[in-house]
Amino acid sequence: MARIAVCLSGCGVYDGSEIHEATATLWAISRRGHQYFCIAPDIPQAQVTNHLNQEPMQESRNVRIESARIARGEVRDVKDVTPDDFDALIFPGGYGAAINLCDFASARTDAKVHPDVQRLIDQTLVAKKPIGAWCIAPAMLAAATRGKGVTLTIGTDKATAEELEKMGAKHKRASAKEVVVDPNFKIVTTPAYMLASNIAEVFEGIDNAVGRLLELCK
Amino acid sequence: MARIAVCLSGCGVYDGSEIHEATATLWAISRRGHQYFCIAPDIPQAQVTNHLNQEPMQESRNVRIESARIARGEVRDVKDVTPDDFDALIFPGGYGAAINLCDFASARTDAKVHPDVQRLIDQTLVAKKPIGAWCIAPAMLAAATRGKGVTLTIGTDKATAEELEKMGAKHKRASAKEVVVDPNFKIVTTPAYMLASNIAEVFEGIDNAVGRLLELCK
Repeated sequence: MARIAVCLSGCGVYDGSEIHEATATLWAISRRGHQYFCIAPDIPQAQVTNHLNQEPMQESRNVRIESARIARGEVRDVKDVTPDDFDALIFPGGYGAAINLCDFASARTDAKVHPDVQRLIDQTLVAKKPIGAWCIAPAMLAAATRGKGVTLTIGTDKATAEELEKMGAKHKRASAKEVVVDPNFKIVTTPAYMLASNIAEVFEGIDNAVGRLLELCK
Repeated sequence: MARIAVCLSGCGVYDGSEIHEATATLWAISRRGHQYFCIAPDIPQAQVTNHLNQEPMQESRNVRIESARIARGEVRDVKDVTPDDFDALIFPGGYGAAINLCDFASARTDAKVHPDVQRLIDQTLVAKKPIGAWCIAPAMLAAATRGKGVTLTIGTDKATAEELEKMGAKHKRASAKEVVVDPNFKIVTTPAYMLASNIAEVFEGIDNAVGRLLELCK
Protein backbone atom coordinates (compact mmCIF):
# COMPACT_ATOMS: atom_id res chain seq x y z
CA MET A 1 0.00 0.00 0.00
CA ALA A 2 1.39 3.38 -1.05
CA ARG A 3 1.19 6.47 1.12
CA ILE A 4 0.67 9.68 -0.84
CA ALA A 5 1.16 13.26 0.42
CA VAL A 6 -1.33 15.70 -1.15
CA CYS A 7 -0.17 19.31 -0.88
CA LEU A 8 -3.12 21.71 -0.66
CA SER A 9 -3.04 25.51 -1.03
CA GLY A 10 -6.34 26.56 0.59
CA CYS A 11 -9.95 25.72 -0.24
CA GLY A 12 -11.48 27.11 -3.42
CA VAL A 13 -10.42 27.54 -7.04
CA TYR A 14 -9.85 31.32 -6.96
CA ASP A 15 -7.68 31.61 -3.83
CA GLY A 16 -6.75 28.05 -2.86
CA SER A 17 -6.91 24.45 -4.02
CA GLU A 18 -9.51 23.65 -6.67
CA ILE A 19 -11.97 21.58 -4.63
CA HIS A 20 -13.03 19.09 -7.33
CA GLU A 21 -9.40 18.41 -8.31
CA ALA A 22 -8.29 17.93 -4.71
CA THR A 23 -11.26 15.67 -3.95
CA ALA A 24 -10.74 13.67 -7.16
CA THR A 25 -7.12 13.12 -6.09
CA LEU A 26 -8.09 11.76 -2.65
CA TRP A 27 -10.79 9.57 -4.22
CA ALA A 28 -8.45 8.17 -6.90
CA ILE A 29 -5.91 7.21 -4.21
CA SER A 30 -8.52 5.75 -1.85
CA ARG A 31 -10.44 3.71 -4.43
CA ARG A 32 -7.21 1.86 -5.31
CA GLY A 33 -6.72 0.91 -1.66
CA HIS A 34 -3.88 3.36 -1.01
CA GLN A 35 -3.59 5.97 1.71
CA TYR A 36 -3.18 9.73 1.61
CA PHE A 37 -2.45 12.52 4.03
CA CYS A 38 -2.77 16.22 3.37
CA ILE A 39 -0.10 18.86 3.84
CA ALA A 40 -0.02 22.66 3.34
CA PRO A 41 2.14 25.62 4.30
CA ASP A 42 1.03 27.35 7.52
CA ILE A 43 0.88 30.87 6.02
CA PRO A 44 -1.76 33.54 5.30
CA GLN A 45 -3.44 33.23 1.89
CA ALA A 46 -2.16 35.76 -0.65
CA GLN A 47 -5.80 36.82 -1.11
CA VAL A 48 -9.35 35.89 -0.15
CA THR A 49 -11.79 35.86 -3.07
CA ASN A 50 -15.58 35.90 -3.01
CA HIS A 51 -16.24 32.88 -5.23
CA LEU A 52 -19.73 34.10 -6.14
CA ASN A 53 -18.53 37.28 -7.87
CA GLN A 54 -14.73 36.81 -7.93
CA GLU A 55 -14.17 40.10 -6.06
CA PRO A 56 -11.56 40.41 -3.29
CA MET A 57 -12.78 40.08 0.30
CA GLN A 58 -11.20 42.21 3.02
CA GLU A 59 -10.28 39.42 5.38
CA SER A 60 -7.41 37.12 6.14
CA ARG A 61 -7.44 33.32 6.00
CA ASN A 62 -4.72 30.77 6.67
CA VAL A 63 -3.76 28.32 3.91
CA ARG A 64 -3.37 25.33 6.23
CA ILE A 65 -6.57 26.00 8.21
CA GLU A 66 -8.69 26.42 5.05
CA SER A 67 -7.07 23.34 3.48
CA ALA A 68 -8.39 21.37 6.48
CA ARG A 69 -11.90 21.86 5.03
CA ILE A 70 -10.93 19.63 2.11
CA ALA A 71 -8.98 17.23 4.34
CA ARG A 72 -11.80 16.98 6.93
CA GLY A 73 -9.27 17.67 9.68
CA GLU A 74 -5.57 16.91 9.81
CA VAL A 75 -3.28 18.86 7.50
CA ARG A 76 0.42 18.58 8.32
CA ASP A 77 2.59 21.67 8.04
CA VAL A 78 4.80 21.29 4.94
CA LYS A 79 7.83 22.33 6.99
CA ASP A 80 7.53 19.18 9.14
CA VAL A 81 7.30 16.76 6.19
CA THR A 82 10.10 14.96 4.35
CA PRO A 83 10.05 12.30 1.59
CA ASP A 84 10.60 9.67 4.29
CA ASP A 85 6.92 10.23 5.14
CA PHE A 86 5.49 9.34 1.69
CA ASP A 87 5.86 7.30 -1.49
CA ALA A 88 4.73 10.12 -3.79
CA LEU A 89 3.77 13.79 -3.60
CA ILE A 90 0.82 15.42 -5.44
CA PHE A 91 -0.09 19.06 -6.04
CA PRO A 92 -3.73 19.55 -7.15
CA GLY A 93 -4.51 22.77 -9.02
CA GLY A 94 -6.43 25.90 -8.18
CA TYR A 95 -5.15 29.46 -8.13
CA GLY A 96 -3.68 28.80 -4.66
CA ALA A 97 -0.90 26.82 -6.35
CA ALA A 98 0.08 30.00 -8.22
CA ILE A 99 -0.36 32.54 -5.39
CA ASN A 100 0.20 30.64 -2.13
CA LEU A 101 2.65 27.85 -2.99
CA CYS A 102 4.58 30.21 -5.27
CA ASP A 103 4.06 33.64 -6.87
CA PHE A 104 3.74 32.53 -10.50
CA ALA A 105 0.45 34.41 -10.91
CA SER A 106 2.23 37.76 -10.50
CA ALA A 107 5.96 37.08 -11.06
CA ARG A 108 5.41 34.71 -14.01
CA THR A 109 8.82 33.42 -15.23
CA ASP A 110 10.56 35.02 -12.21
CA ALA A 111 8.34 32.98 -9.87
CA LYS A 112 9.76 31.88 -6.55
CA VAL A 113 8.38 28.86 -4.71
CA HIS A 114 7.60 28.99 -0.97
CA PRO A 115 10.88 27.85 0.71
CA ASP A 116 9.34 24.87 2.54
CA VAL A 117 7.59 23.68 -0.63
CA GLN A 118 10.79 24.19 -2.66
CA ARG A 119 12.80 22.20 -0.10
CA LEU A 120 10.25 19.35 -0.16
CA ILE A 121 10.25 19.18 -3.98
CA ASP A 122 14.07 19.23 -4.05
CA GLN A 123 14.25 16.38 -1.52
CA THR A 124 11.57 14.38 -3.35
CA LEU A 125 13.51 14.61 -6.62
CA VAL A 126 16.70 13.52 -4.85
CA ALA A 127 14.80 10.61 -3.26
CA LYS A 128 13.55 9.68 -6.78
CA LYS A 129 9.95 9.54 -5.57
CA PRO A 130 7.17 10.51 -8.01
CA ILE A 131 5.59 13.97 -8.06
CA GLY A 132 2.17 14.70 -9.58
CA ALA A 133 0.81 18.15 -10.47
CA TRP A 134 -2.57 18.99 -12.00
CA CYS A 135 -4.02 22.06 -13.76
CA ILE A 136 -1.90 25.17 -13.06
CA ALA A 137 0.27 23.45 -10.41
CA PRO A 138 2.80 22.35 -13.09
CA ALA A 139 3.70 26.07 -13.41
CA MET A 140 4.77 25.99 -9.75
CA LEU A 141 6.66 22.77 -10.45
CA ALA A 142 8.42 24.38 -13.42
CA ALA A 143 9.56 27.21 -11.13
CA ALA A 144 10.69 24.71 -8.49
CA THR A 145 12.69 22.68 -11.04
CA ARG A 146 13.97 25.70 -12.94
CA GLY A 147 16.48 24.77 -15.64
CA LYS A 148 16.32 21.02 -15.02
CA GLY A 149 14.41 20.26 -18.25
CA VAL A 150 11.47 18.40 -16.77
CA THR A 151 8.66 17.48 -19.18
CA LEU A 152 5.15 18.53 -18.17
CA THR A 153 1.81 19.88 -19.38
CA ILE A 154 -0.61 22.64 -18.53
CA GLY A 155 -2.84 21.64 -21.45
CA THR A 156 -2.86 23.72 -24.62
CA ASP A 157 -2.54 27.36 -23.49
CA LYS A 158 0.32 28.66 -25.64
CA ALA A 159 1.28 31.71 -23.56
CA THR A 160 1.53 29.76 -20.30
CA ALA A 161 3.34 26.89 -22.03
CA GLU A 162 5.94 29.36 -23.34
CA GLU A 163 6.48 30.74 -19.84
CA LEU A 164 7.09 27.22 -18.53
CA GLU A 165 9.63 26.66 -21.31
CA LYS A 166 11.35 29.95 -20.42
CA MET A 167 11.84 28.48 -16.94
CA GLY A 168 13.58 25.54 -18.56
CA ALA A 169 10.76 22.99 -18.67
CA LYS A 170 9.72 21.07 -21.79
CA HIS A 171 6.01 21.55 -22.44
CA LYS A 172 3.92 18.81 -24.04
CA ARG A 173 0.35 19.55 -25.18
CA ALA A 174 -2.32 17.31 -23.65
CA SER A 175 -6.12 17.11 -23.56
CA ALA A 176 -8.20 17.03 -20.37
CA LYS A 177 -8.13 13.25 -20.04
CA GLU A 178 -4.48 12.81 -21.07
CA VAL A 179 -1.49 12.43 -18.78
CA VAL A 180 2.10 13.49 -19.44
CA VAL A 181 4.77 11.41 -17.72
CA ASP A 182 8.42 12.36 -17.40
CA PRO A 183 10.01 8.97 -16.63
CA ASN A 184 13.42 10.43 -15.72
CA PHE A 185 12.16 12.84 -13.08
CA LYS A 186 9.08 10.69 -12.28
CA ILE A 187 6.83 13.70 -12.83
CA VAL A 188 3.17 13.16 -13.79
CA THR A 189 0.97 16.05 -14.99
CA THR A 190 -2.56 16.44 -16.39
CA PRO A 191 -4.52 19.57 -17.42
CA ALA A 192 -7.70 19.03 -15.33
CA TYR A 193 -9.71 22.31 -15.26
CA MET A 194 -7.17 24.05 -17.53
CA LEU A 195 -9.14 22.24 -20.26
CA ALA A 196 -11.90 20.06 -18.85
CA SER A 197 -15.40 21.11 -19.79
CA ASN A 198 -17.03 19.39 -16.83
CA ILE A 199 -16.28 17.70 -13.50
CA ALA A 200 -16.54 14.19 -15.01
CA GLU A 201 -13.60 14.97 -17.34
CA VAL A 202 -11.60 16.34 -14.39
CA PHE A 203 -12.13 13.10 -12.49
CA GLU A 204 -11.21 10.97 -15.52
CA GLY A 205 -7.96 12.88 -16.13
CA ILE A 206 -6.92 12.90 -12.48
CA ASP A 207 -7.84 9.23 -12.05
CA ASN A 208 -5.62 8.40 -15.02
CA ALA A 209 -2.81 10.54 -13.59
CA VAL A 210 -3.00 8.99 -10.11
CA GLY A 211 -2.92 5.54 -11.73
CA ARG A 212 0.27 6.43 -13.61
CA LEU A 213 1.81 8.00 -10.51
CA LEU A 214 1.14 4.86 -8.45
CA GLU A 215 2.82 2.71 -11.13
CA LEU A 216 5.94 4.84 -10.68
CA CYS A 217 5.88 4.12 -6.92
CA LYS A 218 6.57 0.43 -7.49
CA MET B 1 -30.99 15.02 -19.96
CA ALA B 2 -32.04 15.70 -16.37
CA ARG B 3 -31.30 18.96 -14.59
CA ILE B 4 -30.55 18.54 -10.89
CA ALA B 5 -30.50 21.27 -8.23
CA VAL B 6 -27.88 20.63 -5.54
CA CYS B 7 -28.58 22.58 -2.34
CA LEU B 8 -25.36 23.45 -0.51
CA SER B 9 -25.01 24.78 3.04
CA GLY B 10 -21.52 26.28 3.04
CA CYS B 11 -18.10 24.76 2.38
CA GLY B 12 -16.66 22.34 4.94
CA VAL B 13 -17.92 19.40 6.98
CA TYR B 14 -18.03 21.20 10.37
CA ASP B 15 -19.94 24.37 9.41
CA GLY B 16 -21.19 23.81 5.86
CA SER B 17 -21.54 21.19 3.14
CA GLU B 18 -19.27 18.18 3.40
CA ILE B 19 -16.91 18.81 0.49
CA HIS B 20 -16.35 15.19 -0.63
CA GLU B 21 -20.10 14.45 -0.52
CA ALA B 22 -20.99 17.59 -2.47
CA THR B 23 -18.26 16.93 -5.04
CA ALA B 24 -19.25 13.27 -5.38
CA THR B 25 -22.82 14.41 -6.08
CA LEU B 26 -21.77 16.77 -8.87
CA TRP B 27 -19.49 14.09 -10.35
CA ALA B 28 -22.16 11.38 -10.24
CA ILE B 29 -24.58 13.67 -12.10
CA SER B 30 -21.99 14.83 -14.65
CA ARG B 31 -20.53 11.41 -15.45
CA ARG B 32 -24.01 10.20 -16.48
CA GLY B 33 -24.33 13.12 -18.91
CA HIS B 34 -26.81 15.09 -16.82
CA GLN B 35 -26.59 18.69 -15.65
CA TYR B 36 -26.55 20.29 -12.22
CA PHE B 37 -26.77 23.75 -10.75
CA CYS B 38 -26.06 24.73 -7.17
CA ILE B 39 -28.37 26.62 -4.83
CA ALA B 40 -28.02 27.80 -1.22
CA PRO B 41 -29.74 30.20 1.18
CA ASP B 42 -28.19 33.69 1.22
CA ILE B 43 -27.73 33.87 5.02
CA PRO B 44 -24.87 34.07 7.53
CA GLN B 45 -23.49 30.71 8.62
CA ALA B 46 -24.66 29.66 12.11
CA GLN B 47 -20.96 29.29 13.00
CA VAL B 48 -17.48 29.32 11.48
CA THR B 49 -15.30 26.40 12.56
CA ASN B 50 -11.54 26.02 12.30
CA HIS B 51 -11.40 22.65 10.53
CA LEU B 52 -7.86 21.96 11.77
CA ASN B 53 -8.80 21.91 15.47
CA GLN B 54 -12.63 22.11 15.35
CA GLU B 55 -12.64 25.26 17.50
CA PRO B 56 -14.98 28.19 16.74
CA MET B 57 -13.56 31.13 14.77
CA GLN B 58 -14.66 34.66 15.60
CA GLU B 59 -15.73 35.67 12.13
CA SER B 60 -18.80 35.68 9.93
CA ARG B 61 -19.21 33.93 6.59
CA ASN B 62 -22.17 33.74 4.21
CA VAL B 63 -23.61 30.33 3.32
CA ARG B 64 -24.18 31.16 -0.35
CA ILE B 65 -20.78 32.83 -0.86
CA GLU B 66 -18.89 29.95 0.77
CA SER B 67 -20.96 27.39 -1.18
CA ALA B 68 -19.66 29.06 -4.36
CA ARG B 69 -16.24 27.56 -3.53
CA ILE B 70 -17.67 24.09 -4.17
CA ALA B 71 -19.73 25.28 -7.15
CA ARG B 72 -16.77 27.15 -8.75
CA GLY B 73 -18.98 30.22 -9.17
CA GLU B 74 -22.71 30.45 -9.63
CA VAL B 75 -24.93 29.50 -6.70
CA ARG B 76 -28.56 30.55 -7.03
CA ASP B 77 -30.38 31.90 -3.98
CA VAL B 78 -32.84 29.24 -2.79
CA LYS B 79 -35.55 31.86 -2.54
CA ASP B 80 -35.47 32.39 -6.33
CA VAL B 81 -35.76 28.68 -7.20
CA THR B 82 -38.89 26.58 -7.80
CA PRO B 83 -39.35 22.96 -8.94
CA ASP B 84 -40.01 24.30 -12.46
CA ASP B 85 -36.24 24.86 -12.60
CA PHE B 86 -35.20 21.25 -11.98
CA ASP B 87 -36.03 17.55 -12.35
CA ALA B 88 -34.74 16.58 -8.91
CA LEU B 89 -33.33 18.21 -5.77
CA ILE B 90 -30.36 16.95 -3.72
CA PHE B 91 -29.06 17.87 -0.27
CA PRO B 92 -25.50 16.64 0.39
CA GLY B 93 -24.48 16.28 4.04
CA GLY B 94 -22.15 18.16 6.32
CA TYR B 95 -23.00 19.89 9.58
CA GLY B 96 -24.28 22.88 7.56
CA ALA B 97 -27.39 20.85 6.73
CA ALA B 98 -28.13 20.67 10.47
CA ILE B 99 -27.17 24.25 11.47
CA ASN B 100 -27.70 26.42 8.36
CA LEU B 101 -30.52 24.72 6.42
CA CYS B 102 -32.33 23.95 9.69
CA ASP B 103 -31.54 23.93 13.42
CA PHE B 104 -31.63 20.18 14.02
CA ALA B 105 -28.17 20.24 15.64
CA SER B 106 -29.50 22.27 18.58
CA ALA B 107 -33.32 21.92 18.50
CA ARG B 108 -33.29 18.18 17.64
CA THR B 109 -36.92 16.94 17.28
CA ASP B 110 -38.22 20.55 17.51
CA ALA B 111 -36.07 21.47 14.47
CA LYS B 112 -37.37 24.15 12.12
CA VAL B 113 -36.20 24.32 8.51
CA HIS B 114 -35.16 27.63 6.91
CA PRO B 115 -38.40 29.02 5.39
CA ASP B 116 -37.10 29.17 1.81
CA VAL B 117 -35.74 25.62 2.02
CA GLN B 118 -38.99 24.41 3.61
CA ARG B 119 -41.02 26.07 0.85
CA LEU B 120 -38.84 24.49 -1.86
CA ILE B 121 -39.14 21.00 -0.33
CA ASP B 122 -42.93 21.41 0.03
CA GLN B 123 -43.25 22.46 -3.61
CA THR B 124 -40.97 19.64 -4.80
CA LEU B 125 -43.10 17.04 -3.00
CA VAL B 126 -46.27 18.54 -4.53
CA ALA B 127 -44.61 18.47 -7.96
CA LYS B 128 -43.76 14.79 -7.34
CA LYS B 129 -40.12 15.37 -8.25
CA PRO B 130 -37.43 13.27 -6.51
CA ILE B 131 -35.45 14.54 -3.50
CA GLY B 132 -32.10 13.09 -2.42
CA ALA B 133 -30.40 13.63 0.94
CA TRP B 134 -27.06 12.23 2.13
CA CYS B 135 -25.40 11.82 5.53
CA ILE B 136 -27.09 14.03 8.17
CA ALA B 137 -29.23 15.92 5.61
CA PRO B 138 -32.08 13.35 6.00
CA ALA B 139 -32.56 14.78 9.53
CA MET B 140 -33.35 18.14 7.92
CA LEU B 141 -35.65 16.35 5.47
CA ALA B 142 -37.44 14.59 8.37
CA ALA B 143 -38.05 18.00 9.96
CA ALA B 144 -39.27 19.42 6.65
CA THR B 145 -41.68 16.51 6.10
CA ARG B 146 -42.76 16.25 9.75
CA GLY B 147 -45.56 13.75 10.29
CA LYS B 148 -45.75 12.65 6.64
CA GLY B 149 -44.22 9.22 7.27
CA VAL B 150 -41.40 9.40 4.73
CA THR B 151 -38.91 6.51 4.77
CA LEU B 152 -35.24 7.45 5.01
CA THR B 153 -31.86 6.55 6.49
CA ILE B 154 -29.08 8.23 8.44
CA GLY B 155 -27.22 4.91 8.64
CA THR B 156 -27.19 2.99 11.92
CA ASP B 157 -26.99 5.59 14.70
CA LYS B 158 -29.83 4.57 17.03
CA ALA B 159 -30.28 7.87 18.91
CA THR B 160 -30.50 9.96 15.73
CA ALA B 161 -32.77 7.38 14.06
CA GLU B 162 -35.14 7.60 17.04
CA GLU B 163 -35.25 11.39 16.75
CA LEU B 164 -36.19 11.10 13.07
CA GLU B 165 -38.98 8.69 13.98
CA LYS B 166 -40.22 11.11 16.65
CA MET B 167 -40.61 13.66 13.84
CA GLY B 168 -42.80 11.12 12.05
CA ALA B 169 -40.31 9.59 9.60
CA LYS B 170 -39.73 5.86 9.19
CA HIS B 171 -36.05 5.05 9.64
CA LYS B 172 -34.43 2.18 7.77
CA ARG B 173 -30.90 1.06 8.66
CA ALA B 174 -28.40 1.13 5.81
CA SER B 175 -24.67 0.66 5.31
CA ALA B 176 -22.37 3.24 3.68
CA LYS B 177 -22.87 1.88 0.16
CA GLU B 178 -26.59 1.23 0.49
CA VAL B 179 -29.42 3.47 -0.66
CA VAL B 180 -32.90 3.77 0.85
CA VAL B 181 -35.66 4.72 -1.59
CA ASP B 182 -39.15 5.84 -0.61
CA PRO B 183 -41.05 5.26 -3.87
CA ASN B 184 -44.19 7.11 -2.72
CA PHE B 185 -42.47 10.36 -1.83
CA LYS B 186 -39.60 9.77 -4.32
CA ILE B 187 -37.07 10.32 -1.54
CA VAL B 188 -33.58 8.79 -1.87
CA THR B 189 -31.15 8.71 1.09
CA THR B 190 -27.71 7.20 1.79
CA PRO B 191 -25.49 7.40 4.90
CA ALA B 192 -22.25 8.66 3.26
CA TYR B 193 -19.87 9.90 6.01
CA MET B 194 -22.34 8.93 8.76
CA LEU B 195 -20.82 5.48 8.22
CA ALA B 196 -18.24 5.46 5.44
CA SER B 197 -14.72 4.65 6.54
CA ASN B 198 -13.08 6.36 3.57
CA ILE B 199 -13.77 8.69 0.63
CA ALA B 200 -14.04 5.79 -1.84
CA GLU B 201 -17.02 4.39 0.09
CA VAL B 202 -18.63 7.85 0.16
CA PHE B 203 -18.35 8.09 -3.62
CA GLU B 204 -19.74 4.57 -4.11
CA GLY B 205 -22.77 5.23 -1.89
CA ILE B 206 -23.54 8.62 -3.43
CA ASP B 207 -23.01 7.32 -6.94
CA ASN B 208 -25.54 4.57 -6.23
CA ALA B 209 -27.95 7.10 -4.74
CA VAL B 210 -27.69 9.51 -7.68
CA GLY B 211 -28.30 6.60 -10.04
CA ARG B 212 -31.50 5.67 -8.18
CA LEU B 213 -32.61 9.32 -8.05
CA LEU B 214 -32.17 9.70 -11.80
CA GLU B 215 -34.28 6.60 -12.40
CA LEU B 216 -37.08 8.30 -10.48
CA CYS B 217 -36.81 11.33 -12.80
CA LYS B 218 -37.98 9.27 -15.78
